[in-house]
Amino acid sequence: MVEITGTTRLYGILADPIHHVKTPQMLNAFMAQEGIDGVTVPMHVGADDLAALMAGLKHMKNLGGLIVTVPHKTAVLDLCDEVTDSARRIGAVNTIRRTADGRLIGEMLDGKGFVGGLIAGGIAPEGRSAYLAGAGGAANAIAFALAQAGVSRLTIANRTRAKAEDLADRLKDAFPGLQVDIGSPDPSGHDIVVNATSLGLRDGDPLPLDADRLAPEQIVAEIIMQPEQTALLKAAAARGCRVHFGKPMLACQRELMAAFLELSAPAGTAE
Amino acid sequence: MVEITGTTRLYGILADPIHHVKTPQMLNAFMAQEGIDGVTVPMHVGADDLAALMAGLKHMKNLGGLIVTVPHKTAVLDLCDEVTDSARRIGAVNTIRRTADGRLIGEMLDGKGFVGGLIAGGIAPEGRSAYLAGAGGAANAIAFALAQAGVSRLTIANRTRAKAEDLADRLKDAFPGLQVDIGSPDPSGHDIVVNATSLGLRDGDPLPLDADRLAPEQIVAEIIMQPEQTALLKAAAARGCRVHFGKPMLACQRELMAAFLELSAPAGTAE
Repeated sequence: MVEITGTTRLYGILADPIHHVKTPQMLNAFMAQEGIDGVTVPMHVGADDLAALMAGLKHMKNLGGLIVTVPHKTAVLDLCDEVTDSARRIGAVNTIRRTADGRLIGEMLDGKGFVGGLIAGGIAPEGRSAYLAGAGGAANAIAFALAQAGVSRLTIANRTRAKAEDLADRLKDAFPGLQVDIGSPDPSGHDIVVNATSLGLRDGDPLPLDADRLAPEQIVAEIIMQPEQTALLKAAAARGCRVHFGKPMLACQRELMAAFLELSAPAGTAE
Repeated sequence: MVEITGTTRLYGILADPIHHVKTPQMLNAFMAQEGIDGVTVPMHVGADDLAALMAGLKHMKNLGGLIVTVPHKTAVLDLCDEVTDSARRIGAVNTIRRTADGRLIGEMLDGKGFVGGLIAGGIAPEGRSAYLAGAGGAANAIAFALAQAGVSRLTIANRTRAKAEDLADRLKDAFPGLQVDIGSPDPSGHDIVVNATSLGLRDGDPLPLDADRLAPEQIVAEIIMQPEQTALLKAAAARGCRVHFGKPMLACQRELMAAFLELSAPAGTAE
């Protein structure tokens, strides 16, 4: 890590609980490597105290920005001074830049990170059909990012159908030309199959979709990073599908965060 | 530095300007050495925004405390939930501990650090007479700490006499048995002579007192740390006085801060 001095800019990650977050390690390694005079620290705050903390943090002149994670991604939307169109549509924010005049600008990079990871892995969503398991926070972000990336059609499958319908309605509002369907556990007939549920995090979780219906020409992608090999990816590989791990999303998201937070080294010091 | 993770406690230094502060380096080195999972960062805030920032920071569960410096030491007094008696008397706070239930407890350690540095240098103020040049923030803190340490009498000399009189009145209220006088630039007749003004920081500053009146049996102490050898200390040494540098104050204050902030390593990991 770079030594922290009086000129160091501060970045925080807002979470509750917070002990498990890896963003400080990830961004501090990145800033050290790039010669950026900044430090990322955990900021543990409960849902009831989030608005008060953010109202205070706005006034810290050397605060460069905030990363936001569970359970605050939805609540911070209304606590920013401004949010990007995509964050507004998704209804969530995970990255906030503080401008020199103290304004907080929110953006949502979870879905963009996932799609960027796909593209980095050689899987361009443009023109392909996609099946999305889940309609929660991660699925929301990924659905909008897939739509933005130009999928030919998108099917959303969720155990609670009303949540899938709500997401589909919002997608159709934002992307009127896109075909959006409500799906079943059967993912067949789609080029790219994405698990955006938390099923697979824990040993013994049921599969998020009917893997017996997977066919070799399909690509199956995970958002779960740990374990790297989920039961779904194992089943997909066994059926001859190409698989895409959860991890590339993280590297891509780090790049997107650095760009949005305008992290850069003083002139002449960047590597 | 220790790696910053989701379990790291946060400490901040509030200042404006902030680029010159050395507290992050000092406390981070201390915490690394002691195996404490904490990090100290600069928090740059203007006087107009101080109350709002502190009101927000109270809500950060992993905030361990705050160090306060120019120009905020007086203003934070009323922004703490509770302050120690000595901080209340001095009218300033430089160290704030955040309790587990989110209360901010303020203490003033500048003067105690100075007196602790004197004692560590083998100069016990108890029973000795003291001459203090200055009546500003540092002088206030040192005057109360010298009184607390049991000086036999205390003389305050300040260019603006009204400020010296105000300080003397408050000292007499707090220590009714103590003889407090208003002095002239002549420090003669006192065992310990202290410069608590900023004169000596810059080349060409006038001396803070009439050094021609110093006698070999007197001890002359500085609060200025940089330069280590001020014009006053050089003049005092030339007249045969024992001199006491400004630096020991810092090491002592670090110990007092660590104790007040309850900085300690997890059981079994301390050195």
